[in-house]
Amino acid sequence: MHSARQIRFARLRYAFARSRPQLVRSMATAPRGDYATLTEEDVKHFAGILAPTSILSSLPPFNNPQSELDTYNNDWLGKYYGRSKLVLKPKTTAEVSAVLKHCYRRKLAIVPQGGNTGLVGSGVPANDEVILNLANMSNIRSFDPMTGIIVAEAGCILENLSNYLAPHSHIIPLDLGAKGSCQIGGNVSTNAGGLRVLRYGSLHGSVLGLEVVLPNGEILDQLSTMRKDNTGYDLKQLFIGAEGTLGIVTALSIQCPPAPRAQQNLVLALPSYNQLPEIFKLAKTHLSEVLSAFELFDRESYELVCHHTGQRALNESEIGGSECFVLIETSGGRAEHDEEKLASLLEILYGTVSSSSPLINSGVLSQSADQFFSLWKLREGVPEAAGKTGKVYKYDISVPVREFMNVTNTVRNRLQEKGLYRSGPNSRVSHVMGYGHVGDGNLHINVVADAYTPEIEAALEPFVFELVQSHKGSISAEHGLGLQKTQHLHYSKGQISRDWMRKVKLLFDDKGIMNPGKVIAV
Amino acid sequence: MHSARQIRFARLRYAFARSRPQLVRSMATAPRGDYATLTEEDVKHFAGILAPTSILSSLPPFNNPQSELDTYNNDWLGKYYGRSKLVLKPKTTAEVSAVLKHCYRRKLAIVPQGGNTGLVGSGVPANDEVILNLANMSNIRSFDPMTGIIVAEAGCILENLSNYLAPHSHIIPLDLGAKGSCQIGGNVSTNAGGLRVLRYGSLHGSVLGLEVVLPNGEILDQLSTMRKDNTGYDLKQLFIGAEGTLGIVTALSIQCPPAPRAQQNLVLALPSYNQLPEIFKLAKTHLSEVLSAFELFDRESYELVCHHTGQRALNESEIGGSECFVLIETSGGRAEHDEEKLASLLEILYGTVSSSSPLINSGVLSQSADQFFSLWKLREGVPEAAGKTGKVYKYDISVPVREFMNVTNTVRNRLQEKGLYRSGPNSRVSHVMGYGHVGDGNLHINVVADAYTPEIEAALEPFVFELVQSHKGSISAEHGLGLQKTQHLHYSKGQISRDWMRKVKLLFDDKGIMNPGKVIAV
Repeated sequence: MHSARQIRFARLRYAFARSRPQLVRSMATAPRGDYATLTEEDVKHFAGILAPTSILSSLPPFNNPQSELDTYNNDWLGKYYGRSKLVLKPKTTAEVSAVLKHCYRRKLAIVPQGGNTGLVGSGVPANDEVILNLANMSNIRSFDPMTGIIVAEAGCILENLSNYLAPHSHIIPLDLGAKGSCQIGGNVSTNAGGLRVLRYGSLHGSVLGLEVVLPNGEILDQLSTMRKDNTGYDLKQLFIGAEGTLGIVTALSIQCPPAPRAQQNLVLALPSYNQLPEIFKLAKTHLSEVLSAFELFDRESYELVCHHTGQRALNESEIGGSECFVLIETSGGRAEHDEEKLASLLEILYGTVSSSSPLINSGVLSQSADQFFSLWKLREGVPEAAGKTGKVYKYDISVPVREFMNVTNTVRNRLQEKGLYRSGPNSRVSHVMGYGHVGDGNLHINVVADAYTPEIEAALEPFVFELVQSHKGSISAEHGLGLQKTQHLHYSKGQISRDWMRKVKLLFDDKGIMNPGKVIAV
Repeated sequence: MHSARQIRFARLRYAFARSRPQLVRSMATAPRGDYATLTEEDVKHFAGILAPTSILSSLPPFNNPQSELDTYNNDWLGKYYGRSKLVLKPKTTAEVSAVLKHCYRRKLAIVPQGGNTGLVGSGVPANDEVILNLANMSNIRSFDPMTGIIVAEAGCILENLSNYLAPHSHIIPLDLGAKGSCQIGGNVSTNAGGLRVLRYGSLHGSVLGLEVVLPNGEILDQLSTMRKDNTGYDLKQLFIGAEGTLGIVTALSIQCPPAPRAQQNLVLALPSYNQLPEIFKLAKTHLSEVLSAFELFDRESYELVCHHTGQRALNESEIGGSECFVLIETSGGRAEHDEEKLASLLEILYGTVSSSSPLINSGVLSQSADQFFSLWKLREGVPEAAGKTGKVYKYDISVPVREFMNVTNTVRNRLQEKGLYRSGPNSRVSHVMGYGHVGDGNLHINVVADAYTPEIEAALEPFVFELVQSHKGSISAEHGLGLQKTQHLHYSKGQISRDWMRKVKLLFDDKGIMNPGKVIAV
């Protein structure tokens, strides 16, 4: 156990590391289990399995400087620091299996690692686990342009898959900011959300098959390329979002949709949150099958983004006292059809069809690719603008859309009551912003302060988690649990669910060697 | 174990029962486990839990005639006959839990039963299990017209849910021939496929939450109404398609899409199967987001349907030597947009755009609601026409679309080689038909004979299962395993997958009381 002061210290260093990453060791954020300690003999054994270029170790016979392992031990945010002395980068499923067989026999703990782009520390060691990095497994095994089904190895970078599919007029049903470095195996293992969930659904629907190496080295081959298969339990589903704690995903097959041939977007300024549910309903009705994004950002988010970009996308006088903004995107087969559908929606929103009053104060529709990206920038620029303004407490939650304003304002009021926000010269919090994916019920709350302080943290946690719990929401909508939230699981899952998760964990990983400290404590 | 003769006898009775259902007891199709035998004391105990109207038993104190239990003991096809002496119809989840607690303590086996519309005998007793029928749990707990998320109890009839949603302009992402009597809990427990999978994906994507009573009576509450929740293992996925062998689904939440405002369909006559992949690709490209069905039926299917309906939808001279036909459906937000997209597709198919030769011999586009249903009838009428022609051996398989013709013809050739088909006066097989859901890779093969005979059966099984296996396909695409195919699971799942299924089964159902004999033998 660490004292509050130690934790506080870690948080401050994290804040510092974000702006200027430092390779300083941190305290472990999860207690080390009773797994074995890696020896020189183990490393020699792995050297008999993998090519020398697939191994990086500070132990003999490799003797790499420990610093060469830093990029594998530490997460990209500089928040978590592992102490692993061995990175293995197998090239085949058979190699992964052989590695795990040895680890299982020796009770050596392993952390599977993809592109190391996660936000919750799932892909880096909590302590001194062996790092099994999938980067060398990056073959596309097959693609069928008729069915749109691709079979790819876990280490394929998301953007590479997208680029591969582009000439075939298909897309991966997943898009993320980290696409240039995240790996598809990591995406599946963390059930990554992102920008295409509203349209294409979750990976539980689009992943058709998985090849998984289990903790004991067995290869569970469920690499089906069938859309329909009702022969027994759909075991592969367990590994989607398991953060590598039940086994290592080595390959997968995904149903890829045809690429849209046209995309449009617009930004609307809403008088108040009260219009949000109605507008979302109208968008679903009138845009129906071409609706591909429905995103929210509140006034504070908007102002901050405009401040940082130096541009105001909407006419100041028109937006008036707007409380919040939505970005709507369409993706369809024909631009003119999508435009007509959008025009119908806008007529209703402006109140020109019915005699009722307008639902929006103002709106702007992109007229070019440049404008399309500029409008997206208003929404996607929010976290960046927050990070440039100060230290950011980030919450990634699922709550009912009707509660988005209520939840955000409850956090604001809490901070104000505590004298931390809009309470005079001692207010250390400058912004409380709500934004997110309305279509997915996924709200991001960013609290921007001049520094990370124990007072702010105490005001926010567990307050925010309890608030989420009171709405039967999720404390992790799309980022996962990892080292950050595993100990907070009880806010979103009841005792019986947690008990059964633990039983499932122990069934597959009876020695507790697979990514210990993540998802569920055993 | 039963002798071949006994099995043969059961099959003949099944054939007879289909045309005129008989309430004759059959041999059990799965060996009875060592679970306890129901006693009068047990029935009295249940009478203390449930209302008298929720219990039907041939044991005291109820003493209902055993025949009153027939509709619960027997499946609707008249293929499977159970010997249960007790039907329980609980009204609440708490009641289900209390029932299971007693069964668990006493080691009494249970079969959960929905609308009893399954095709593989999953929902009827293999022997003398207690029948737990969900019909009395038919409340819609909530519906949010903004998000489209409905929370319903397991006993809700699919069509009732559709009717409930219609005024809210939403649909259930599932449609089946049995919609008038099947229950949503059974649909989820069998991972039902049907007509909307191509467009809306599988239930693994659209089911957001489940409430499940586990074999020991614990209530696993994962009845989330969130689209995104990354807090731990997605345990609910295990129960989707588990056929009630891991627990009883008592309620669920489903993401419902907005109702389409326009629908169109057309039927195309293809010179040969060679055009099928290209046309499917073109349909996906040009119809993109409005494509909602892409169905195949071969020439034999077409001729038989035309023969039985007495109508020929297409011009005889135009279809010429066409080998097969496809039905394409669009569902969209605006009829005129969908028509324009269809017109573009047809121009290409007819070869009027490029200088290449036409891909189709002929096509007909529905011009009215009547014609829309008439065209669907060509495809949906195939199994009915087969049933009217003779005894039908039915295979419901997933194989690559490119292999549809090959697989169907391989079965034809097999029967021809055996002198059973197109081999002179002794040919007992009149038709071998291939049809199905191209968009899902799901092929149905119907073999129509003048009688069920050991020769035909021996020619077909395990030949068809081995054929499916050689294509890494599924021996059950959408119907499940049940009593019919559980013993054939090895054709579609390897040893390691089966071992892990068995471990999962034993983890949740350590006493083996939950729907024994289905999905996986323990």
